[in-house]
Amino acid sequence: MSDRLVIALDAMGGDRAPEVVVEGAAIARERFPSTSFLMFGDRPRLEPLVEAHPKLAAATEYRHTREVVSSEDKPSVALRSARGSSMRLAIDAVRDGEASCVVSAGNTGALMAIAKFVLKTMPGIDRPAITTYYPTMRGESCMLDLGANVQCDAENLVQFAVMGEVFARTVLGIEKPTIGLLNVGVEALKGREEVREAAAILNETPLPIEFFGFVEGDDIPAGTVDVIVTDGFTGNVALKTAEGMTKLYTSFLRDAFKSSIAAKIGYLFIRRALDNLRQRTDPRRYNGAMLLGLNGIVIKSHGGTDAVGFANAIGVGLDMAQHGFTDKIRQDFERLKASQSEQKKAAVS
Amino acid sequence: MSDRLVIALDAMGGDRAPEVVVEGAAIARERFPSTSFLMFGDRPRLEPLVEAHPKLAAATEYRHTREVVSSEDKPSVALRSARGSSMRLAIDAVRDGEASCVVSAGNTGALMAIAKFVLKTMPGIDRPAITTYYPTMRGESCMLDLGANVQCDAENLVQFAVMGEVFARTVLGIEKPTIGLLNVGVEALKGREEVREAAAILNETPLPIEFFGFVEGDDIPAGTVDVIVTDGFTGNVALKTAEGMTKLYTSFLRDAFKSSIAAKIGYLFIRRALDNLRQRTDPRRYNGAMLLGLNGIVIKSHGGTDAVGFANAIGVGLDMAQHGFTDKIRQDFERLKASQSEQKKAAVS
Repeated sequence: MSDRLVIALDAMGGDRAPEVVVEGAAIARERFPSTSFLMFGDRPRLEPLVEAHPKLAAATEYRHTREVVSSEDKPSVALRSARGSSMRLAIDAVRDGEASCVVSAGNTGALMAIAKFVLKTMPGIDRPAITTYYPTMRGESCMLDLGANVQCDAENLVQFAVMGEVFARTVLGIEKPTIGLLNVGVEALKGREEVREAAAILNETPLPIEFFGFVEGDDIPAGTVDVIVTDGFTGNVALKTAEGMTKLYTSFLRDAFKSSIAAKIGYLFIRRALDNLRQRTDPRRYNGAMLLGLNGIVIKSHGGTDAVGFANAIGVGLDMAQHGFTDKIRQDFERLKASQSEQKKAAVS
Repeated sequence: MSDRLVIALDAMGGDRAPEVVVEGAAIARERFPSTSFLMFGDRPRLEPLVEAHPKLAAATEYRHTREVVSSEDKPSVALRSARGSSMRLAIDAVRDGEASCVVSAGNTGALMAIAKFVLKTMPGIDRPAITTYYPTMRGESCMLDLGANVQCDAENLVQFAVMGEVFARTVLGIEKPTIGLLNVGVEALKGREEVREAAAILNETPLPIEFFGFVEGDDIPAGTVDVIVTDGFTGNVALKTAEGMTKLYTSFLRDAFKSSIAAKIGYLFIRRALDNLRQRTDPRRYNGAMLLGLNGIVIKSHGGTDAVGFANAIGVGLDMAQHGFTDKIRQDFERLKASQSEQKKAAVS
């Protein structure tokens, strides 16, 4: 990678913006020295924060705006009225080719709506999806959709499978990712109709996709497959359940280590190993959800993350940009379309 | 409780039946001395196993049958053809008033179908639901449905809320249980239509139900509410995700304790505290899913559980029978109906 990648930052989005965004950008600048930033937001507030980091300041260009999308704004309102907001302008920069990707910790619904409106979905994709990756028993897997579409039909699920496969291949670096459809049982007759229909399509697809079949909730942390495909309602609930379980375990462990003098002594010996475990499951490490299926790379950082988490979200955007993620998805959908029309021709003749 | 409670056991259901069933019954007999058992299954196989526990033998009556529902049988097939199976006969015993409840570790779909056919749903309830309770940050909560209904409308969800409330009150002993509807966001405008509609109905219900509003996936382990209401697809995925996370953490912890000499020494000090933690989250402790909404108490044990787990499932059935669970649900639905027709009258006059 020789060319300098430009990241558009919605500097005003998130619970502790713009501080966390600027600090996160400073960390990312250290990690990825060939990166520069377009920072959208209130310049008089941003400038002193950025100037505290000379290397970041040297790599930052400001785009001043006072308008912001608040966390309470409805997506439709944000879309119509906030044409000069930091979020909207940052997304515009990706459309106009000024930036390789955009990172925002702001209002998810608004980000989704604006990104879809400005960047449009790729040819062959009806609806964008949100994905993220997470630690499993076997390494790392990703799941989609995580909340962009509360109801999905079979065709949507198939498109998610194709997008997820490209994501796992390019970002997670898995050569032949396996794909599973989330269901309530592994038998072919079980579950919702759209899920069974999607399985039938994926079993026949001409794309070189490794379709594993149905998986269940416990296969998510087990890492049975590299990509889990589901609707946005189920995916959102499953991901948040998993996050909640991590908190439950952290709390139960804390109690256990305080429960006796022996336990307290033991904790001193084991602290370092537990620190490693904590790092392994650190939610900041997995911060950054990706909006897939758009003509451009859009990363949603958790609204409540800290600077380290935000820097990781920037890292994910860089990764996707460097690996030409958008082009690879486009190629796969073109191939899918070509093979489908060939099948049709064959059926006709 | 002076009268002797009779439990109908499907002795042939489950991965390691009949051994686990008999051993489980023996443990339950020790814990609940005033219980006796109707054991349905292959008597020549059962008798030597039971005779090894004289107290159990004294409290057991056999109902011989060689027919079994296998784990591969489709529910419809099991319903039509297996009229003499251990599962069917055990459920018949509840209908005929011979037993206070039935416990089976067999095929879930078949159990559901046969129980619904034999016992029928209670007046006012369209569909039965599966529930279970589990440990949370605040104590114990329950969730329903866990897989009986992959698609639900608003009315189904409202009925689940009423059943769950009675369950939490009678079995978990919570005086005024709070009810939450699982959704992808806590705002009133988010999520699926049927979930928003159910919320509107619950906000207006004349029953003395503590409706909390929407909850998200992380509220399941957090124990934000006592009863979580959702469709069977989402509930099944969420519960299995949580189970999978428990396995993931157990595995990560095991790795951590082996990762260095210091950690191994620390483990010796902390082992006892960890044993307590393990007990706190032991899946066997939470074995036993309940089929709610039927004219009779039906408990589904995990197919792969051991004797301790099966004994706990028997304990849950006893608990529900002793607390007059079925009558209480019936009363609540009668009250609901009465108040609804009064509302109608008021609207007419």
